[in-house]
Amino acid sequence: MPSGGGSSGDAVFELHRGGKIELALTVPVQTREDLSLAYTPGVARVCTAIAAEPALADVFTWRANTVAVVSDGSAVLGLGDLGPAAALPVMEGKALLFKRFAGIDAVPIVLDCTDVDELVETVVRLAPGFGGINLEDISAPRCFDVERRLQQRLHIPVFHDDQHGTAVVVLAALRNAAALTGRTLGDLRVVVSGAGAAGVAVTRILLAAGIGDIAVADSRGIVSRDRHDLSEVKSGLAQETNLAGRSGSLAGALSGADVLLGLSAGRVPESAVATMAADAIIFALANPDPEVDPVVAHRYARVVATGRSDYPNQINNVLAFPGIFRGALDAGATRITEGMKLAAAEALAEIVGADLSETCIVPSVLDGRVAPQVAAAVAAAAKVEGVVRPR
Amino acid sequence: MPSGGGSSGDAVFELHRGGKIELALTVPVQTREDLSLAYTPGVARVCTAIAAEPALADVFTWRANTVAVVSDGSAVLGLGDLGPAAALPVMEGKALLFKRFAGIDAVPIVLDCTDVDELVETVVRLAPGFGGINLEDISAPRCFDVERRLQQRLHIPVFHDDQHGTAVVVLAALRNAAALTGRTLGDLRVVVSGAGAAGVAVTRILLAAGIGDIAVADSRGIVSRDRHDLSEVKSGLAQETNLAGRSGSLAGALSGADVLLGLSAGRVPESAVATMAADAIIFALANPDPEVDPVVAHRYARVVATGRSDYPNQINNVLAFPGIFRGALDAGATRITEGMKLAAAEALAEIVGADLSETCIVPSVLDGRVAPQVAAAVAAAAKVEGVVRPR
Repeated sequence: MPSGGGSSGDAVFELHRGGKIELALTVPVQTREDLSLAYTPGVARVCTAIAAEPALADVFTWRANTVAVVSDGSAVLGLGDLGPAAALPVMEGKALLFKRFAGIDAVPIVLDCTDVDELVETVVRLAPGFGGINLEDISAPRCFDVERRLQQRLHIPVFHDDQHGTAVVVLAALRNAAALTGRTLGDLRVVVSGAGAAGVAVTRILLAAGIGDIAVADSRGIVSRDRHDLSEVKSGLAQETNLAGRSGSLAGALSGADVLLGLSAGRVPESAVATMAADAIIFALANPDPEVDPVVAHRYARVVATGRSDYPNQINNVLAFPGIFRGALDAGATRITEGMKLAAAEALAEIVGADLSETCIVPSVLDGRVAPQVAAAVAAAAKVEGVVRPR
Repeated sequence: MPSGGGSSGDAVFELHRGGKIELALTVPVQTREDLSLAYTPGVARVCTAIAAEPALADVFTWRANTVAVVSDGSAVLGLGDLGPAAALPVMEGKALLFKRFAGIDAVPIVLDCTDVDELVETVVRLAPGFGGINLEDISAPRCFDVERRLQQRLHIPVFHDDQHGTAVVVLAALRNAAALTGRTLGDLRVVVSGAGAAGVAVTRILLAAGIGDIAVADSRGIVSRDRHDLSEVKSGLAQETNLAGRSGSLAGALSGADVLLGLSAGRVPESAVATMAADAIIFALANPDPEVDPVVAHRYARVVATGRSDYPNQINNVLAFPGIFRGALDAGATRITEGMKLAAAEALAEIVGADLSETCIVPSVLDGRVAPQVAAAVAAAAKVEGVVRPR
């Protein structure tokens, strides 16, 4: 066996030894009779029934409760392009969270290809065995194309969690932070620092939720119409954001802004944070090193959130994706719409209820109400939006 | 929910409702500390370690104990081309058996493509997450190409069970049947009826085991060098078999033969069976309708086996594939060689031991000794053959 590289006695590596998930049986296999029901000859009748009526695969197999967690390993956490094998521990972790929080059977699928056409074709081919596709840790801008094309080709939910999971939790948290400071979402002037998967998706959901004044900055500065170095996706953002027509650095946009969302175009200097409006809100979500040190952020902001579990207000995708998929699968949704994501964010925000405070704008990741309430809201929205398979 | 097509109250359909397998957790997720070990931030260190030393994926993920059970649904059981969704119950059943008999975590993967290039590319792409590939219910002759090309491309075991699982169990059973009737394998003149996946693989393993005189027949008659309608694979068989140069119908080859292996080119008439040698051996493996009715077979043969659980001597692949993969994974084998399959057959045959009789030439499918003893023999053979990954 490989040594494990000096990891002996290390709690993280010890916990990972042999992996974090396994397959389990849900029916007995003790007798010949058991075998003849679960396998041949009995199983032949189930196959024949599904061949005649394909929707029965959702009744007589595990499919309707499964999600493939698919990655090419090109953007693993904040670590970059580590390749498919090194992405596997994250995908197993995701499967763990799907099961633990939503009872969903998720299967890690790490792919040895990064070409968009190849990724799309591969996922389309393996889709008949799954009830949904959770894309994960695929680098921008390829992730946008991969998701869009899969949504066009498949009639099951396809959801890039790094985009939309983050977006839903950020929106929920921001809704509560605004309420806490006596404002509505429409009142807020927002600066998004980062135009990767999360930055783009967060910006879009904030626009959908009614925030009109958003400036997005990437590592080269504010995404504006006069820039000629923008990708297709960023050009789109330039059309929909930055109504004030600002250009130049992030610091310029921050002056007088109500909200800074760090997502992550890098460290934001204290001098820029100091120019924000009163009752400012700062979400510095880079992990493990937030874009603004929380101690510094608290000098200028009334509400501070991070991605870390050792500070209050942890913005963590696990608050969203288990419930979103649970709701989509329960409803038989063919896709996850903007409306379903907005409903998820609203349900998530409401769980905080009377506990709302500067140090509690999102529920705990261990709050057992989260996934069921998000799921119920998502399933209801799917029905309202008419994206539910006939049954 | 779909109705289930009048299946209510039917034991097979009731058992299949919701599927037969699920994902399960092997580590606790109760506290924030648990989360920080199994997911972020802890998991990042495991990813980084694997990126630096890829073999660590076999230590710190579930990969080394997993098998993808892959089908395109083109030859589901004996039912034909039902497509991927309708194949899913069989693949789930296979996953069930892998776990129950060998503790292996198998994942059903049903693919929406049948082109050989596409199948090969798709499986190569998803392979980084799996320790082995079990191909299943892929129609001949495509199955031969798919398996051969995957074995060339991948450095993990790739095993088409319809071929080699059947071959191993047939060889084990035939070895015992020969011993019971005072003969060696080399003494036997064998007729194989069927030149599909199973017929081809059985013929090859019998040749490797030292049976010199084999005639293979497909639905058009004996596979012989003077036929011009043969596929590439059958042409190969024609070179290696039929040393007597027979041509014409199966019935001609059966006259004086010691063994008939029905695999399944269809029903064999009693008049042909009647011409076999004394102490004949008949394996009629078509399911549910054997090529020769067992009652008829017993009139002319001393040993009769079928694929059915309601007759003695059930030739069932579950006697082979769990132990073969267990042994290959335990040894870190990069492939499954002919020698490993021969070792599996020998180990399987030996388990019968002193119980050997006309009605007991293979162990029961529920015999707990089978998978461990087959696994041990396969792992040992892998080491002897030098197909083991360095550790």
